[in-house]
Amino acid sequence: MSKRIVVLGGDATGMSAASTALRHADDGEFEVVVLERGHYTSYSACGIPYWISGHVADRDQLIARTPDEHRAAGIDVRMRAEATAIDLDKRSVSVRGVDDGDTYELGFDELVIATGAVPTVPPLEGSDAQGIFGVQSLEQGEEIVEDLLRGARSDGKGGDGDRRKAVVVGAGYIGVEMAEAMVVRGIDTTVIEHAPEPFTQVDPDMGALIRVAMEGEGMTVVTGVAVDGFDVGEDGRVKAVRAGDAVYPADIVIMGLGVKPNARLAADAGLEIGPSGGIVTDVRMRAAPGVWAGGDCAEVHHRLSGKGVHIALGTHANKHGRIIGTNIAGGYGAFPGVIGTAISKVCDLEIGRTGLTEREADAAGFGYVTATVESTTTAGYWPEAENMTVKVLAEQRTGRLLGAQIVGRTGSGKRIDVFATAIWNAMTVEEMTFMDLSYAPPFSPVWDAVLIAARKAAKEVQGEIPASPV
Amino acid sequence: MSKRIVVLGGDATGMSAASTALRHADDGEFEVVVLERGHYTSYSACGIPYWISGHVADRDQLIARTPDEHRAAGIDVRMRAEATAIDLDKRSVSVRGVDDGDTYELGFDELVIATGAVPTVPPLEGSDAQGIFGVQSLEQGEEIVEDLLRGARSDGKGGDGDRRKAVVVGAGYIGVEMAEAMVVRGIDTTVIEHAPEPFTQVDPDMGALIRVAMEGEGMTVVTGVAVDGFDVGEDGRVKAVRAGDAVYPADIVIMGLGVKPNARLAADAGLEIGPSGGIVTDVRMRAAPGVWAGGDCAEVHHRLSGKGVHIALGTHANKHGRIIGTNIAGGYGAFPGVIGTAISKVCDLEIGRTGLTEREADAAGFGYVTATVESTTTAGYWPEAENMTVKVLAEQRTGRLLGAQIVGRTGSGKRIDVFATAIWNAMTVEEMTFMDLSYAPPFSPVWDAVLIAARKAAKEVQGEIPASPV
Repeated sequence: MSKRIVVLGGDATGMSAASTALRHADDGEFEVVVLERGHYTSYSACGIPYWISGHVADRDQLIARTPDEHRAAGIDVRMRAEATAIDLDKRSVSVRGVDDGDTYELGFDELVIATGAVPTVPPLEGSDAQGIFGVQSLEQGEEIVEDLLRGARSDGKGGDGDRRKAVVVGAGYIGVEMAEAMVVRGIDTTVIEHAPEPFTQVDPDMGALIRVAMEGEGMTVVTGVAVDGFDVGEDGRVKAVRAGDAVYPADIVIMGLGVKPNARLAADAGLEIGPSGGIVTDVRMRAAPGVWAGGDCAEVHHRLSGKGVHIALGTHANKHGRIIGTNIAGGYGAFPGVIGTAISKVCDLEIGRTGLTEREADAAGFGYVTATVESTTTAGYWPEAENMTVKVLAEQRTGRLLGAQIVGRTGSGKRIDVFATAIWNAMTVEEMTFMDLSYAPPFSPVWDAVLIAARKAAKEVQGEIPASPV
Repeated sequence: MSKRIVVLGGDATGMSAASTALRHADDGEFEVVVLERGHYTSYSACGIPYWISGHVADRDQLIARTPDEHRAAGIDVRMRAEATAIDLDKRSVSVRGVDDGDTYELGFDELVIATGAVPTVPPLEGSDAQGIFGVQSLEQGEEIVEDLLRGARSDGKGGDGDRRKAVVVGAGYIGVEMAEAMVVRGIDTTVIEHAPEPFTQVDPDMGALIRVAMEGEGMTVVTGVAVDGFDVGEDGRVKAVRAGDAVYPADIVIMGLGVKPNARLAADAGLEIGPSGGIVTDVRMRAAPGVWAGGDCAEVHHRLSGKGVHIALGTHANKHGRIIGTNIAGGYGAFPGVIGTAISKVCDLEIGRTGLTEREADAAGFGYVTATVESTTTAGYWPEAENMTVKVLAEQRTGRLLGAQIVGRTGSGKRIDVFATAIWNAMTVEEMTFMDLSYAPPFSPVWDAVLIAARKAAKEVQGEIPASPV
């Protein structure tokens, strides 16, 4: 008799776990049921801002595999079906039809919890007004596009229609990407961020560079103030955002305050939830015997701080799914943890980060030195040379690379992967100084920016060692 | 009394050694004399093809620092002066003025040999004809530019003037870069390569991709034949290149057969020369007490094969110079060796390599598996997604990453540095599989090409392990 795998959530982790398990299984070994409360499976949430901007032309391009495609591969995908409870003793989940309200129990041999994340929504006055949108799901992306189209000018751009002014709340990944999308659509855009500089995923000195670039794109960047609430018109639509002592008129508001793990079901079932709010698993992504969790609802191990962290990112979600599927099928897969690598862009400004920022290093208890260098993406004399700023954190005394941040123009951001690989291997900045990285004038200066930054950091490490070490 | 540092060669290694030593020294500690036989100091030889193509507008952009700039920093730069002998016992070099023939002896306390490389020139009939050029020095670059201008049409392009057809001999780095330069200038270009596929710095299966791209740029690529000689006109100018059974008409010929260490002086002085033809040094780049060698004239340690190799590359030359200068000044600098990382491009095709190719791995005695994957530089749905092919070599049984090669369009090549950093740290392909590399749709698919290639290679490693290991 085949074992039943029940998967909660039909996006990256869930579908990847389902596909991987089936691919490694004998015929008839598994029956796989996926419950998805939304309308879509396996789509790129990370791509939504670029569909909204129009850079990606068609919504369907964001969908890697439709429910029917998964069904053709032998997966019983049940759309608009959500789990309302998990019973670990009875080995079953309670299922409810989102549209019809029908309920039933579904037994499982193996359970995959891939319920994703939910947006952080502060309880603000007027936050349920029309015209205020999150960007978490493809459905929400659709709502934004439809709303913009309703308010657009005849040329398809916002501006002269109803949607002249956008306010984006939060200047993190979603915030800056959505701000870009609004600007690309020709909409006056104001970004409001609580922190002193935008993009708190990097240090404020690097965030200041991002601010300058955002302002250069015509965005208004308001920092250091929290949103107090929304003014709502008689038609029930948002009219303005109140923040600090000011009122920012808004025809549309995008909430980009980040997400938190959607772990309520797991918590109610008695599974362990970590300090990050995510479901705790072992290295094989197992939350309990026969119960697996991964993706945005799970907590993962940070290799530098040693703590559990929550990082909602499609690449991790896909890795988790593959690992879970491999393990369910009887193979061995272990997630080695994260080091906080990420990349984003605002128009042609690229932002990369890996390891720990100063704030994160402080929180983890590290003593560290920093070094910041300016360089170019190519030889300085190359006509297409672009500027980039690289900041490096290295541990005091040991010189171990703790973090790196890059803010620069086209072609700079992906260098963060070199730092990531160095951190992964616990390299010191001294060891990095003479690494054999590729060089040719169209691709880097004779000393690549990575090497220059490492060298400067190594000097700082040297400098802080007392002449007569204790 | 100050110690005298004599430097043979005023390019990357020599001037970097001189500058670094002075920067770390007390006032008056060192007198630094640099002997340079050419007309220029501190220039980017790697940039010459791009100046010839016109992409870099001005020759002076390739010059990082002129003799006078170095003199202002306190270095006694003697141009058009070449050393003709080194006497290690007397601690002196014999110097001859290239233009005036004057000779003198110059004593040294510390000697830096940075005599660079000389082009490989096979003894072919007619090879001293006019119109046949190497691309090793800025002077040679000037000769090519002047020759092309003499033969150019009124619009500045080659074509209707005398320089309608170019033949490039050799399809390595210089060959493909010069072929690009000729094509950019509107000249019909044929590249003749002895090997079965162009660009033997990568494996033939990857070279075949380069061939297709070169042909797509309108170049004629002739492989598997050696050049037999040159037909010379009555005016003493080259008319054609004979190779195999064919004759290739040529108004200009570029020799791109690579370079070999210019180590004759060192050999004559009794310094050890390695199997690669380069000067042997210790890890501090010391060839003998008080005698240092680096850059294109030196042999370096390959971290994978364990052998001495000769790799002429500006980035190594600069590193050597800094290390030598640091050591002369009483500091500590050690060169950690190379892993064969390099990058190049032909028009918008990028080529990266690191570690060992199949041929090199065979020569070193490694058993290995290979994996080749096709991927994209960005999410597949990103409008600017570009194709890339990644090939990985991993050691049998251990799975240690031995090499990687990338051939792809804009934005693909620099990923080679991630592989380089992984090789530097002796990572296995299995360990690389779940590395935390950066992801966002404009920058990579959800599984970066590096990870996909590592995963496929890890499967190959698994596959070749017997089910019941001995």
